[in-house]
Amino acid sequence: MSRGWFFCVEGVDGAGKTTQCQLLADWLRERGYGVVLCRDPGGTAIGERIREILLSVNGASAMTELLLFMASRAQLVTEVIRPALQRGEIVLADRFLLASVVYQGYAGGICPERIWELGRWATAETLPDLTVVLDLPPERARQRKAEWRDQFEQRGMEFLGRVRAGYLAEAQRCPATIVVVNADRSPAEVQADLRSEVGRVLSGNTRS
Amino acid sequence: MSRGWFFCVEGVDGAGKTTQCQLLADWLRERGYGVVLCRDPGGTAIGERIREILLSVNGASAMTELLLFMASRAQLVTEVIRPALQRGEIVLADRFLLASVVYQGYAGGICPERIWELGRWATAETLPDLTVVLDLPPERARQRKAEWRDQFEQRGMEFLGRVRAGYLAEAQRCPATIVVVNADRSPAEVQADLRSEVGRVLSGNTRS
Repeated sequence: MSRGWFFCVEGVDGAGKTTQCQLLADWLRERGYGVVLCRDPGGTAIGERIREILLSVNGASAMTELLLFMASRAQLVTEVIRPALQRGEIVLADRFLLASVVYQGYAGGICPERIWELGRWATAETLPDLTVVLDLPPERARQRKAEWRDQFEQRGMEFLGRVRAGYLAEAQRCPATIVVVNADRSPAEVQADLRSEVGRVLSGNTRS
Repeated sequence: MSRGWFFCVEGVDGAGKTTQCQLLADWLRERGYGVVLCRDPGGTAIGERIREILLSVNGASAMTELLLFMASRAQLVTEVIRPALQRGEIVLADRFLLASVVYQGYAGGICPERIWELGRWATAETLPDLTVVLDLPPERARQRKAEWRDQFEQRGMEFLGRVRAGYLAEAQRCPATIVVVNADRSPAEVQADLRSEVGRVLSGNTRS
């Protein structure tokens, strides 16, 4: 059966995920690949409803948030990601499971390993071939975002510091599938690194 | 620390859960207990938003449904159930974790034991002291409900048959904490059995 590739771009708000995903999708399409862009949470009718709850409601426990993210993700896998991979296309996700490991885990206090475990179950082991973390110090992220758009962006520098530490720790733990790119540079420089990392996987050098 | 009791009433739609919970709450209050009634999914601001999604959206996978139910439940435990138990009150829930084990598990195809495991984690082991299943054959449930209100009630007799079989199997597996009451009788007769079962736990005879 033909199978595509699943790439994920991660990082704190302000790191440039949306821009970089779009540039990467353009590049991949120019090279002839079918590309499906999606965002997590969201990307399906149910997922967008869940996203609304996550962005508008205060007082959710870390566990409640984790389960809502996982619900959105499970639906995204079923409706969007798995069908695209089966068509042999490239899925490019703006955040995925690693975001929960880092935000609800490292920063939120839930055991990261149990989040991985739940995520593997909820997605039926549909995990990215490669996740690229756009790394940015919290103070630089804050400078880039003149206004913090939602509650996830209002949690303060200390929370963002734990998020960043989580991303770096997971990249160190899983170097074959999680790589870190310095996002404190021009978009073109960041994109060059992203293309290099993704190209390496597409050419089969490190396919997990 | 003072600790209350956690009771749950389960069963298919039409089995009389809402009526029986209300009658039981009245009886318990007359006996001097503080009683908190709640429904699952729901019971909190976030939970009611999740309930809306579950009742209005079609096409959710069993896994997505499971995770949404768990998210609502996790929030209900944090906001309502655990504080009430810590105040020494009685929590009376219209459905709880067993509903997921049966609906998404036995009837929905997800491994029941993994649902128990996820539920124990999501609720931080906040589980009912006693769950009473109001047992009703699917054909009798259908007769009672002239109109099926929502998608969970539209899944047909075969689905309801699997739900019933799941409830009975779990009661057989966990006789100390899950009991079955024949709901195909008058409300007063059903309530008498419910009071007997709950009274037994309150008097300390079978406290789990």
